[in-house]
Amino acid sequence: MITPVCYQDRQLIILDQSKLPQQIVYDRCGTAEEAAEAIRTLKVRGAPLIGIIAAYAMVLALITFKGPNEGLCRYFQEKKHLLAATRPTAVNLFWALNNMERLFMENLELPLADLIKLMEEKANEILNLDIALNRLIGENGRGLLPSGCQVLTICNAGALATGGYGTALGVIRAAHAENGLGMVWVCETRPVLQGARLTVWELTREKIPVTLITDSMAGYIMYLGKVDVVIAGADRVASNGDTANKIGTYSLAMLARCHKIPFYIAAPFSTFDLSLADGAEIPVEERDPQEIKCVNGKYITVPEVSVFNPAFDITPGELISSIITEKGVFSPPYDFSGK
Amino acid sequence: MITPVCYQDRQLIILDQSKLPQQIVYDRCGTAEEAAEAIRTLKVRGAPLIGIIAAYAMVLALITFKGPNEGLCRYFQEKKHLLAATRPTAVNLFWALNNMERLFMENLELPLADLIKLMEEKANEILNLDIALNRLIGENGRGLLPSGCQVLTICNAGALATGGYGTALGVIRAAHAENGLGMVWVCETRPVLQGARLTVWELTREKIPVTLITDSMAGYIMYLGKVDVVIAGADRVASNGDTANKIGTYSLAMLARCHKIPFYIAAPFSTFDLSLADGAEIPVEERDPQEIKCVNGKYITVPEVSVFNPAFDITPGELISSIITEKGVFSPPYDFSGK
Repeated sequence: MITPVCYQDRQLIILDQSKLPQQIVYDRCGTAEEAAEAIRTLKVRGAPLIGIIAAYAMVLALITFKGPNEGLCRYFQEKKHLLAATRPTAVNLFWALNNMERLFMENLELPLADLIKLMEEKANEILNLDIALNRLIGENGRGLLPSGCQVLTICNAGALATGGYGTALGVIRAAHAENGLGMVWVCETRPVLQGARLTVWELTREKIPVTLITDSMAGYIMYLGKVDVVIAGADRVASNGDTANKIGTYSLAMLARCHKIPFYIAAPFSTFDLSLADGAEIPVEERDPQEIKCVNGKYITVPEVSVFNPAFDITPGELISSIITEKGVFSPPYDFSGK
Repeated sequence: MITPVCYQDRQLIILDQSKLPQQIVYDRCGTAEEAAEAIRTLKVRGAPLIGIIAAYAMVLALITFKGPNEGLCRYFQEKKHLLAATRPTAVNLFWALNNMERLFMENLELPLADLIKLMEEKANEILNLDIALNRLIGENGRGLLPSGCQVLTICNAGALATGGYGTALGVIRAAHAENGLGMVWVCETRPVLQGARLTVWELTREKIPVTLITDSMAGYIMYLGKVDVVIAGADRVASNGDTANKIGTYSLAMLARCHKIPFYIAAPFSTFDLSLADGAEIPVEERDPQEIKCVNGKYITVPEVSVFNPAFDITPGELISSIITEKGVFSPPYDFSGK
């Protein structure tokens, strides 16, 4: 299994996903600023992994704290805001930051060295718990992907998007190990090509059958009868099941509905935002137009054209057949209260 | 207006569309083989333009004929087969070749120089007729795009896909001139990016408002209420209105239906194949996997991954609100007999 992140000698070591699959390069982050930059530039991405990185970033912040002790609280808030401002949609980021902040505030009286140790343990726990939850999600979901079935996925909700193993790809991994899948169709996922670059790489390494398509082909392969199940990850799930995920997910859900194909979301509860009644309240990040205008460093269009580049879209809960979590599989009408 | 092709000094001069928008380069084709290669490698593309190029290619074949006269018929057939084998889906290719062959066979008794002159006139007529028909299509369709409306299109069904002016873009041009459009949303159209490279270029040159999106964003902008009309060209239309067009068109038609947005096809009758009962009989070209795996000459994925690369898909006639032609606007249930 791929290790997207590890914590060693008080540094965060991250696999630079922006260079995959051509180069496998690990970067060291020694400061919260470096970790924030890695999130912003998509060296690390995927809702659960962003949360993990943010947790460790707060540890790095404390490790690099130089000021007098009475400035610590304000310093912590500054670093938290720095991290919180990296990306707006994936709620795991805020979930992890809030977890770290709670621990910090509860243990402010400790000597700094002890506080750092406590925070390190918490970040490690967030990482390890994520991997464990991914495996539970895989176990809970694998029965939905019968032997020989053909699965379509988008973006990368794999080991690279999490602490390891993956959410949607966790279900695919578990189902393939148990049942043997017929084919995993991977949408290339423009503009940043996480499907072509990351998911294809993960699946080919494990010899899971994979075929790459452009995003525009998804509807047609459904029409041709080549898709039995669609499964995707999530960046934020609202109380009614409305789900923010990579741009293109909404189209897949709608096309799946038209073709009577089940459409599943796989996500841990750290991706749920039960403070939101529905998806209309989820902020959708718009990213740099250059992501669309340039590929491999060269323009693919007229440089001055205007571009719309939402990184996510919102899929209404009623288009989602089931949401697979570590706590079980939920179906509409969604009710996550008390979970 | 852009001139995608002209015939001068017994040579075919083509705008090399594979280099657009970065470079505006005109190539000379002096032989049928060069013209065939230009079609195969997408230097020229678009169903009507492919037909026009094929017509001129048969003229070039005669001009470069060296053999004894009794070999001419067989030679003509060889060149016709060479052209016919370049691309299978757009029916205009076969329509043009058959037109040229009929004229050739009817005038075999003429001296070669006279035959060539006759064939040149026929090819010129096919080119000029196409432009005239495009303008009629624009006139017939412009009322469907009301003032200020937002239009979504895919691929390039513009001046670059035809003799000039365009089919879907012809309607957009005519509607913008008459009514003023609010926005033209252009799907980038992976893998070959005809939307990003060609349609954006055509529309920005004429100051028609344009915003580029990835193909995966089409459903989401419909969901956001930003699309009033979808319009596309065609590579082949069957008797029941089933339409082959650029891969991704089917998804757009289905998504438009889900969002109650009218979906139009614009095409001249040279794109109709009334010998086919329905779209199941239309051959869909599969192109080189490298088109998907590489962008700007560099891999975007694991080089050895398997890929599915259909260049077209089939949109069922019942998903098409209307088909706009030079002979009027047709609506389901489609009946083109006697047209």
